[in-house]
Amino acid sequence: MSDESARNRLRTLRRQFHRYPEPAWCEYYTTSRIVDEVERIGVDRLYIGTEAYASEHRMALPDSATLREWHDRAADAGARSDVLELTEDGHTGAIAVLEKGTDGPTVVLRVDIDALPQREANDSEHVPSVEGFRSTNDGVMHACGHDAHITTGLGVLEAVSRSDEFDGTFTLIFQPAEERAGGGKPMALSRHTDDVDYFLGLHVGLGHPTGSVVGGIVKPLAVTNFEARFRGESAHAGKNPSQGRNAMQAASTAVQNVYSIPRHVDGMTRINVGRIDGGTAPNIVAEEVRIEGEIRGETNEILQFLRAETERVVDTAAEMHSCDSEFEVTGEAPRADSDPEFSRTVADVAREHGAVTDVTETSEFGASEDATYLMKAVEEQGGTASYAIIGTDHPAPHHSSRFDVDERSLGIGVEVLSETVTALSSRQ
Amino acid sequence: MSDESARNRLRTLRRQFHRYPEPAWCEYYTTSRIVDEVERIGVDRLYIGTEAYASEHRMALPDSATLREWHDRAADAGARSDVLELTEDGHTGAIAVLEKGTDGPTVVLRVDIDALPQREANDSEHVPSVEGFRSTNDGVMHACGHDAHITTGLGVLEAVSRSDEFDGTFTLIFQPAEERAGGGKPMALSRHTDDVDYFLGLHVGLGHPTGSVVGGIVKPLAVTNFEARFRGESAHAGKNPSQGRNAMQAASTAVQNVYSIPRHVDGMTRINVGRIDGGTAPNIVAEEVRIEGEIRGETNEILQFLRAETERVVDTAAEMHSCDSEFEVTGEAPRADSDPEFSRTVADVAREHGAVTDVTETSEFGASEDATYLMKAVEEQGGTASYAIIGTDHPAPHHSSRFDVDERSLGIGVEVLSETVTALSSRQ
Amino acid sequence: MSDESARNRLRTLRRQFHRYPEPAWCEYYTTSRIVDEVERIGVDRLYIGTEAYASEHRMALPDSATLREWHDRAADAGARSDVLELTEDGHTGAIAVLEKGTDGPTVVLRVDIDALPQREANDSEHVPSVEGFRSTNDGVMHACGHDAHITTGLGVLEAVSRSDEFDGTFTLIFQPAEERAGGGKPMALSRHTDDVDYFLGLHVGLGHPTGSVVGGIVKPLAVTNFEARFRGESAHAGKNPSQGRNAMQAASTAVQNVYSIPRHVDGMTRINVGRIDGGTAPNIVAEEVRIEGEIRGETNEILQFLRAETERVVDTAAEMHSCDSEFEVTGEAPRADSDPEFSRTVADVAREHGAVTDVTETSEFGASEDATYLMKAVEEQGGTASYAIIGTDHPAPHHSSRFDVDERSLGIGVEVLSETVTALSSRQ
Amino acid sequence: MSDESARNRLRTLRRQFHRYPEPAWCEYYTTSRIVDEVERIGVDRLYIGTEAYASEHRMALPDSATLREWHDRAADAGARSDVLELTEDGHTGAIAVLEKGTDGPTVVLRVDIDALPQREANDSEHVPSVEGFRSTNDGVMHACGHDAHITTGLGVLEAVSRSDEFDGTFTLIFQPAEERAGGGKPMALSRHTDDVDYFLGLHVGLGHPTGSVVGGIVKPLAVTNFEARFRGESAHAGKNPSQGRNAMQAASTAVQNVYSIPRHVDGMTRINVGRIDGGTAPNIVAEEVRIEGEIRGETNEILQFLRAETERVVDTAAEMHSCDSEFEVTGEAPRADSDPEFSRTVADVAREHGAVTDVTETSEFGASEDATYLMKAVEEQGGTASYAIIGTDHPAPHHSSRFDVDERSLGIGVEVLSETVTALSSRQ
Repeated sequence: MSDESARNRLRTLRRQFHRYPEPAWCEYYTTSRIVDEVERIGVDRLYIGTEAYASEHRMALPDSATLREWHDRAADAGARSDVLELTEDGHTGAIAVLEKGTDGPTVVLRVDIDALPQREANDSEHVPSVEGFRSTNDGVMHACGHDAHITTGLGVLEAVSRSDEFDGTFTLIFQPAEERAGGGKPMALSRHTDDVDYFLGLHVGLGHPTGSVVGGIVKPLAVTNFEARFRGESAHAGKNPSQGRNAMQAASTAVQNVYSIPRHVDGMTRINVGRIDGGTAPNIVAEEVRIEGEIRGETNEILQFLRAETERVVDTAAEMHSCDSEFEVTGEAPRADSDPEFSRTVADVAREHGAVTDVTETSEFGASEDATYLMKAVEEQGGTASYAIIGTDHPAPHHSSRFDVDERSLGIGVEVLSETVTALSSRQ
Repeated sequence: MSDESARNRLRTLRRQFHRYPEPAWCEYYTTSRIVDEVERIGVDRLYIGTEAYASEHRMALPDSATLREWHDRAADAGARSDVLELTEDGHTGAIAVLEKGTDGPTVVLRVDIDALPQREANDSEHVPSVEGFRSTNDGVMHACGHDAHITTGLGVLEAVSRSDEFDGTFTLIFQPAEERAGGGKPMALSRHTDDVDYFLGLHVGLGHPTGSVVGGIVKPLAVTNFEARFRGESAHAGKNPSQGRNAMQAASTAVQNVYSIPRHVDGMTRINVGRIDGGTAPNIVAEEVRIEGEIRGETNEILQFLRAETERVVDTAAEMHSCDSEFEVTGEAPRADSDPEFSRTVADVAREHGAVTDVTETSEFGASEDATYLMKAVEEQGGTASYAIIGTDHPAPHHSSRFDVDERSLGIGVEVLSETVTALSSRQ
Repeated sequence: MSDESARNRLRTLRRQFHRYPEPAWCEYYTTSRIVDEVERIGVDRLYIGTEAYASEHRMALPDSATLREWHDRAADAGARSDVLELTEDGHTGAIAVLEKGTDGPTVVLRVDIDALPQREANDSEHVPSVEGFRSTNDGVMHACGHDAHITTGLGVLEAVSRSDEFDGTFTLIFQPAEERAGGGKPMALSRHTDDVDYFLGLHVGLGHPTGSVVGGIVKPLAVTNFEARFRGESAHAGKNPSQGRNAMQAASTAVQNVYSIPRHVDGMTRINVGRIDGGTAPNIVAEEVRIEGEIRGETNEILQFLRAETERVVDTAAEMHSCDSEFEVTGEAPRADSDPEFSRTVADVAREHGAVTDVTETSEFGASEDATYLMKAVEEQGGTASYAIIGTDHPAPHHSSRFDVDERSLGIGVEVLSETVTALSSRQ
Repeated sequence: MSDESARNRLRTLRRQFHRYPEPAWCEYYTTSRIVDEVERIGVDRLYIGTEAYASEHRMALPDSATLREWHDRAADAGARSDVLELTEDGHTGAIAVLEKGTDGPTVVLRVDIDALPQREANDSEHVPSVEGFRSTNDGVMHACGHDAHITTGLGVLEAVSRSDEFDGTFTLIFQPAEERAGGGKPMALSRHTDDVDYFLGLHVGLGHPTGSVVGGIVKPLAVTNFEARFRGESAHAGKNPSQGRNAMQAASTAVQNVYSIPRHVDGMTRINVGRIDGGTAPNIVAEEVRIEGEIRGETNEILQFLRAETERVVDTAAEMHSCDSEFEVTGEAPRADSDPEFSRTVADVAREHGAVTDVTETSEFGASEDATYLMKAVEEQGGTASYAIIGTDHPAPHHSSRFDVDERSLGIGVEVLSETVTALSSRQ
């Protein structure tokens, strides 16, 4: 296959995934398409759903009605029934393994596959809209480039499968629910992170333009996603305003005070309440209000501080308005830094690539990633880990309705990362 | 028909309505059952939907998907197809007219027919649950006695139709969407309030036990229902927290400050934010949050004050967080007091009733009612209006999950009100 | 003395008191001037300071430095050293007793003597400024008419002392600290409320113009004044923002949420936080913030509800920000209504007065008064009580910088109230 | 003078300054004592007050009553009348100049001299309390080590004056009002920063223990101090709650929302509201409330963002409650980093010192300093600047009531810094 046709193939694939974005743990159709491609390439072992991870550690799982709805929708869209059966009840995702020999190392590449609850732009300035591959699932969008990640992963799998230079085991993890920090932990707690020599994560963009590569990121923010529920008592707002216990006031007091948790001397913090929902009618004192949010910290200790503060704000805001409250962690990822030597290896490979014009060995991350669970798991067993960035021009920030990637970066990513896998083999 | 069988009939009817509660403008099945009963009784004219009121003045109309869903559900439950056709797109409700003669007055009785978005209690202490007529529409409940209102109205219609003593025109209005203060205005702006001599509204309970009757209420609170929408800009909460414009913070600041609008020297005020909904995910700065609430005042002037304050809080809370906002009135009812003489007439009739042990001529109301639109419309054309309370024991407050009525009050209500209609005839 | 000269005398006296306003428990100079006048009139007994009330029940007492400062200032202004000695340490106020005979009743008239922490207007539209009797104590002002109350009280004392028609005991109470609801309780707990037949309180204005008289007020709001202190821990706001415990955030959360305590179905509520003070410097996390406020309710039960809510808001706001809190009641007055017959007696007398053009027997009050402590104490021992309003034109609301009274109302007040005292004698 | 006696002298001096702390622009006594010492040492030129800086650029100047009070107090404490005359009206501070030759460079050392509004601990665990040099100005405390800075500066002055190895100009700046970020700007805008070759700032402690030295700090936070005033309209909180315009609610809304200004992707932020004061009495709607606070950012751009957000919160919080607002900048310091070579010079000198066990060339600062104004001014004219840290054990954080320094660090500081001055001479 010529370079040109390989690049066309990557672009086509990426656009297929872009057109069919699915939220966390609902990646039924996406998993089905991944399995198609993996089977086309041919691997030694393929694990789907419950075989791929420790199912009981999934976080941020939607309710069963939502899971069912996306499952049905995937079926309507033509997802394979065998895959739909294996992935039922939010068991999306897969792991593909190539056994190329026993002399080389065990190398894991992990990509994430979920999309975001974001409506995609629909006008003449947004390329996916103009060129006909805009999201067909209204209100959901690949606004963080995971469509490119899946595509790059598949490209690397194909390249390694054809390579004569790699004589170890190559594992490709397709992880669900990264956006909710819900899929990293169950993956990390599976046997697939045992005895791994090298673990590599991957992200496109993040402000790095096409042609740039970062060997490894450091200082990702540790993150906790939470849901808090405030329960009071409804009452007729006109007749008995003082008899209700007002969950609306509890929640709004909590939101205001969560945002005002102090900055921390030891590093960056982030706080967001991204969802709220509650009450039933204008004339009824709200009985229940639910908020969803996240906190991030530059260190695991800062995150602990933020969590204790957040829980106290939730508790006391509820008590202030005579309500009860519950606080639940719905997603989590620790901080883990890339290994400097591993990062240098990626950077060295990148420097040899003709289309790469700007290489950085390590870069600070500033966001969060539950790949860190996998990085820590691998490192605890003696392996090393890195998390690379493949630059791509993006016309709008990640998580916004106009996000898009420069498809030239797909080929660069595939080549740099597959050559890195080979290079690791010879390093051993 | 014996008294006993009449009472059984009222109870059966009320329980049928109780089992099938429908929210504002979605009373499709309810209207169908009303039409059945009206036709059984036999009337001279029957207006359904668009014929009954000024359709363009409906407020608090749900979105078309919701209307459609309840329409379909009513069809499944066995609502008549002719009625479903006439009431499509939120045109529920009806008006029945008996023309008994031209010597007597034109008397209007108005009852409201909608239910509340409240989950009904389901245990051994809640009679509707024990006796098998608990709501079959999960999350919706007749928690304010409108099931009893419909039943009482039908009972009065039947009694007047059989009466020899009434020789005027009797009109029975079945008004939708009272709970959202959305149906009174379109009814008031229809021709059915023209040339009315006596207008009578009706409520059960409100703290008055079985055996008590209030001839007319005064000082109902004027009410405005509103919806406010805050629109900011989404952003990745970890990467770009300062680039978003946070609608969540705008909304929570607004909620806190709406509740703290000052008390008023000239009378009672009420404030409630009863619904909130917004944002998409924990890690995205919320782009849009929507709140629904109500304000009430003892006078129309106080209500104007509250509205100006509420609008300013919404505007400035949005601006504080660089968001845009919209403020929309979704329901409204002015203050209107019962006529003292009319109230006395009701009270005088009640005093003659054997089962009535406690009669009050006028009582302060303390809640709101969009029957006041009809009262004002009738009064402006020279008629007089009153709004009576038929006492009923209720084990829990209105708008709560354990609300229920004492069914003995159904017969009392029918008898007192139908005799009032007759008495008005002779007063003329 | 001619009517004209009597009226001039009242005006002169009122202006003297107006020029020298003193805050609660600091009325040293005022008490000294009162004693001068009482001695000039001549009474049988005169109690000053500790002899006048139960000193240990004083509320809202300023700190000793403030008491000392006002004491010194009064000395500088020419207050009598014997009175200054008796009133030291916040023991201001006095009680004068006329024993005119044993046949008649014991009648008590109570006036309040303190001023407000309000800067007085100083321009050509404000009469006290133009005519040279504006406050000489900057930042303190007789903005509620207590200067007129003292003057009226002294006028009644003089009239009763000269009267041949009154043959009982007449007691005139000069109560400190009404504005802080701090002086009523100690007065009520003294022996001077024992065996009283009639207790009469007095206020000018309150929206009633010159020439109007209200025989007795009903529905005064029960009131509680409070102080809440939030104590956290200071820290360098730049170096250790997360190590402090921020009393500023605790206090601002409390203020916002105190104002949003729900309205009450049983009647009016009032909430105000009128003072705040705390922290030391921009770059130090605030260690202590103090707020002062008041809550009022139409019934004593509503006040209990407000107090429980306020205390809970204070507690939980402190806890939310890891602070400690203290809640202290600094003033209090219950609700007590005027006796209808007593009110009618005042009204009947007023109707006979040539300058009185508008008489109301009872009127709703809408504000608070710690005279209610005295009213309740007298009623509990079998006496009856009323609280009259002497109308006066006032160009601006009470408690504002442009408040003033129409001095014609001084004469009316003296005449109506002294004739009421006489009338009570004959009623006996 | 022996080392031992030199060290005793430094300790004695530091304790004198510690016993008499004065707040920003009120350092009258402190300046007088400084002048004493400078004169004892002997310098070529001495500038006091208006001669030392651009007086019109002073920020955070207290009101004249406060200035007067501290001026009087300093006089009572024995400050020299000639110095008191020169420093009147908040013209504290001084500059001493040694002209040792024209061959060497012009070196400036700057120390800050003000104390903090913090009550000092008073118990057996606090050394200044036990050993009798606790603050005698109640509520004010040297809680940030400026007493040690003054002492170290004087020690360096004496050492340089006696040195044969330095043949340039040595200028020692005693800057007022560093804690309020109010004194750096006027110093920077004076001619004393003209033609300076080396500028050196100094801080003790900041978490660095005795025996450690940091050659130069980088990344100090840019800071703006602000005052915001909310003006509404007073009203009787019981009678007319809705007529007032409530500055208390405006201020508390602002405080809550200022703290919740978003984190910034480009670096650290700090927010604090450290002072609040307003309202007059519990029963008066507050007419005016004033807050003082600070914002800090890792870059000057972040600071601009924070300032725009803070101003908008203040404006809209006022508008929300129908109040007016004013926003005033009361102190400011930009970010300026130490020159790496200059830092290395300090570090090299420190490494030679016997008592120094731990040397860092550059360290991140994390707090703010208005010495940065001077650093930038010097650099703009071609000089180089650094800001060194002399480690000292401190039992409690800076700005807390138990802060203290290890007096052994005084000698180390004097020696390292005076040898640095000499070393700069030879580097030239």
